Amino acid sequence: MSIADRLARLGISLPEPTAPVATFVPWVRTGNLVFLSGHIARRDGAVVTGRLGEALTTADGVAAARGVAIDLLGTLHAAAGSLDRVTRIVKLMVLVNSGPAYTEQHLVANGASALIVAVFGERGTHARSAFGVTQVPLGSCVEIELIAELASAS
Amino acid sequence: MSIADRLARLGISLPEPTAPVATFVPWVRTGNLVFLSGHIARRDGAVVTGRLGEALTTADGVAAARGVAIDLLGTLHAAAGSLDRVTRIVKLMVLVNSGPAYTEQHLVANGASALIVAVFGERGTHARSAFGVTQVPLGSCVEIELIAELASAS
Amino acid sequence: MSIADRLARLGISLPEPTAPVATFVPWVRTGNLVFLSGHIARRDGAVVTGRLGEALTTADGVAAARGVAIDLLGTLHAAAGSLDRVTRIVKLMVLVNSGPAYTEQHLVANGASALIVAVFGERGTHARSAFGVTQVPLGSCVEIELIAELASAS
Repeated sequence: MSIADRLARLGISLPEPTAPVATFVPWVRTGNLVFLSGHIARRDGAVVTGRLGEALTTADGVAAARGVAIDLLGTLHAAAGSLDRVTRIVKLMVLVNSGPAYTEQHLVANGASALIVAVFGERGTHARSAFGVTQVPLGSCVEIELIAELASAS
Repeated sequence: MSIADRLARLGISLPEPTAPVATFVPWVRTGNLVFLSGHIARRDGAVVTGRLGEALTTADGVAAARGVAIDLLGTLHAAAGSLDRVTRIVKLMVLVNSGPAYTEQHLVANGASALIVAVFGERGTHARSAFGVTQVPLGSCVEIELIAELASAS
Repeated sequence: MSIADRLARLGISLPEPTAPVATFVPWVRTGNLVFLSGHIARRDGAVVTGRLGEALTTADGVAAARGVAIDLLGTLHAAAGSLDRVTRIVKLMVLVNSGPAYTEQHLVANGASALIVAVFGERGTHARSAFGVTQVPLGSCVEIELIAELASAS
């Protein structure tokens, strides 16, 4: 089953990557690796703000992380030409905007990890770090960066 | 001297890597690089919790970071087949669960860095970032991720 | 125009990389990639301390991040032999020592990103993550790590 078929079955349509600003870009490819910039949580264009363990619950965080993963796939699609050219998701770094007593960053991160495995299957299993940060740009509740391996240019 | 001999001389026995969960894995290899997931601090299976500058001292953090480094070597052994196939430790990222006034994250990180150099010698010298985070999954006092270079598959 | 010419036009002289300590090194090269250690903010040798949103303003942070970027270029010059051998700046990770309500980490990071693009042009556009951390070693206001792609050894 192609990745496009899996996305359709999951009811997911990929967004266009956010327009790059002057100084940094959504991704850089080097060799067979592509490094994606940290993506923050957005819903209908607005940043999903708040801190886990304060205004937001773990369930809120899981939903936000899933949304960020979809945005990352949109960027990865643009970077790779097609998600079928992604040979492995290498690593996620999941930053959770956290109050000082909140310790479920791994559960929040599962919202992104599970979506990626649902889309890519075995190729989607990845290394991961998740941890709590003091703040995220624009007050986003989650920020995720991703490294993927692409098929060699033919 | 083989790495196994060095470990024996240091009195270190490597743990089995923690069983992977459904969505992410302890490591991913891509080309000659292997990316290890963030490992948290455990002693006798229990998470070593607490925040540096509050419940824990720098000495506590150094000991915890050394323990995480041993767990990372266990995972790296499983990833590489043998630690003798590790040609370079490339980078550590050391996250220290820190109170807002605690500024000795580099000293905590030295607990991991010194162990790795003791085991690998020159090949163990690595790039590193260390910084203080608001929280770590399960309240762990330290989390460390690692990138290593492996010998080409023969 | 060579990178040296661009630096001269910008009035920037590169520093020597900070002397390595026993356990970690300023950079590690693997294949065509070079991973630089996290660099903290220094001015005339002293650490620039303080937290954004508390003692420091965004303008202070921008200036500090620009200074860290210059130090990173000094290390990159030492790693590559010449900055003209840098084929791409791959990724920055920008850690901003932040009070809990400060959400302009991306603006602070622009201080580093803009400098790098001014020096390298198109090759300097990079992926990036920026976020707020609880503390940075020695109380530095900013810490930045960098991955670059170098020309193959000839």
